[in-house]
Amino acid sequence: MESKLDLIEAVRSGDRLALARLITKIENHAADALQILDALFPFTGNAHLVGVTGSPGSGKSTLVNHLVRALRSGDRTETPPKVAVIAVDPTSPFSGGALLGDRVRMGDLAGDTGVYIRSMASRGALGGLAHATSAVTRAVDAAGFDIIIIETVGAGQTEVEIARLAHTIIVVEAPGMGDDIQAIKAGILEIADILVVNKSDRPGADNAVRALSTMLELARPGWGGDEVDSESDVSLQNHTWTPPILQTIATQASGMEPLIDAIQDHWDYLARSGEKWKRERERLENELNNLLQTALVAGLHANVPGDVYQDYIQRLIEREVSPHQAVQELLAMSNRTAANSNLD
Amino acid sequence: MESKLDLIEAVRSGDRLALARLITKIENHAADALQILDALFPFTGNAHLVGVTGSPGSGKSTLVNHLVRALRSGDRTETPPKVAVIAVDPTSPFSGGALLGDRVRMGDLAGDTGVYIRSMASRGALGGLAHATSAVTRAVDAAGFDIIIIETVGAGQTEVEIARLAHTIIVVEAPGMGDDIQAIKAGILEIADILVVNKSDRPGADNAVRALSTMLELARPGWGGDEVDSESDVSLQNHTWTPPILQTIATQASGMEPLIDAIQDHWDYLARSGEKWKRERERLENELNNLLQTALVAGLHANVPGDVYQDYIQRLIEREVSPHQAVQELLAMSNRTAANSNLD
Repeated sequence: MESKLDLIEAVRSGDRLALARLITKIENHAADALQILDALFPFTGNAHLVGVTGSPGSGKSTLVNHLVRALRSGDRTETPPKVAVIAVDPTSPFSGGALLGDRVRMGDLAGDTGVYIRSMASRGALGGLAHATSAVTRAVDAAGFDIIIIETVGAGQTEVEIARLAHTIIVVEAPGMGDDIQAIKAGILEIADILVVNKSDRPGADNAVRALSTMLELARPGWGGDEVDSESDVSLQNHTWTPPILQTIATQASGMEPLIDAIQDHWDYLARSGEKWKRERERLENELNNLLQTALVAGLHANVPGDVYQDYIQRLIEREVSPHQAVQELLAMSNRTAANSNLD
Repeated sequence: MESKLDLIEAVRSGDRLALARLITKIENHAADALQILDALFPFTGNAHLVGVTGSPGSGKSTLVNHLVRALRSGDRTETPPKVAVIAVDPTSPFSGGALLGDRVRMGDLAGDTGVYIRSMASRGALGGLAHATSAVTRAVDAAGFDIIIIETVGAGQTEVEIARLAHTIIVVEAPGMGDDIQAIKAGILEIADILVVNKSDRPGADNAVRALSTMLELARPGWGGDEVDSESDVSLQNHTWTPPILQTIATQASGMEPLIDAIQDHWDYLARSGEKWKRERERLENELNNLLQTALVAGLHANVPGDVYQDYIQRLIEREVSPHQAVQELLAMSNRTAANSNLD
């Protein structure tokens, strides 16, 4: 067995097997996972996190494959960025980096050491999936990947939470999926930075672009779609972002360059406008508050026996105690237990 | 000034001015509001809470007016139910029961002592609005109203939270508002118990019904719309609810009786299936957990100086401390402060 320090060093040096072992520890809630992540935290915050979400059938996975290929092609820069893909499926009970599906879908990328692919799935509570994804993203970030694509299926509350981990959020649609399918995604449109109509060689692509443009306007009143006034104040343009609507045909690798341009433009916009630091602060403050709440509630439950707590809920239902009174009494009980254990 | 006990008694006896004073106390976070609500809590839990939500322009307010009139008409029962309306507008800064708009809109209902109408609006944090609405609903419940209609505008996260306070949730649409408007409401369709297409004399009413039916199917897979198999197990029918889609013309008071039937049917279904108690338990458990979290976090912030907390967020951003480490240190600091104040 390697030591904890060895594993930390190996992850930092980009050792893929070490990274895989750490992610498995995170998924299994291993006792030392938190300490290892603590040690790696100073080396995070460098990667560009790109969220990709879309309905099943939008061709999102194929799009991600070809996006990774285009990023790695070396056509744009001499040293292409190291790219990781974390594929999250809240509806699947399966997880792990060695799934056959991952290997098949990424095809010839399997031999590229500048690419890391990992699938994650729901284990236990869904609320925990966003948290686990955040931890895995940190591990991959510390391993030196420049771009981390977080791919999620669907657009439920969990997917929105996971998408919020990213700096740049891409929403993928396809023509002819019906307004109803798009409807489900209204919640995620509010946080989309780039919209993609994939399979744009199919009939209805222009309609889909128009529908998305209208929905975008509804979801973000006053954004005014594509109508950017070239005469307007340049400093204002630097500080606002109008989500572009791009068309791609992923199966033909068509439209990848404009998509990479848009991703890079958004990254530049985030830095230029100061939005990057604002989002970073919000994200970390939010994470700290969530962790504090979880720890405080866990502390209370450790001090108050489970049957006492359930008894309070029953007394609430029977109107014997009000919610406000129940809180006061549970807090007092918890504090007494804590004080007594301090005296021991 | 009346005493606290006098106010409690007056609210319980149905004194409308006393109820209005208590609601103002709740909205203003008056020091004694919580104690008064504690004293009234044993007398709550009797009213049927009906949430009504829909986009602006769906004619929702007119629908609620005529629904109240129909409930109060006495056509159905000799002693019609006492009905209250709490109109919540998260986008409006105005609040209070004496707004001209309320008096105008309810017209001839103003003289009916079996009807109470109050508007509420956002004060400070939106998250607080659902909590304040819950407290106001309890006050009205304790005052002896049989049916409390909680009317909200729009379908954002706040509206969904507020709607969740209700036993029966009605979503109102209108024809010709476009698929895009309906799209925004996808989130609330998942929790709708009754769907209403208002203004059903307008062109496109049948299309709207069809669109809602399709969206309902998407939002609740396997529910199968209206296709109830009459041969199927009766006990199963007792335990499932298929949201009906009704058509109304509120300006002509048309369709009110079927709507009242559906509201009553849903109330009966909740009791018959045991769903009422399940939801009641979930609602109270959820409220207790939220109040506990809020109290615990407030306790921590009382023990940790604000600048120390802000300093931790800055150190998180600079990667000097990990979120997990920050939580450990903040908890330890809070516990030390609490222990020292106990020794004093």
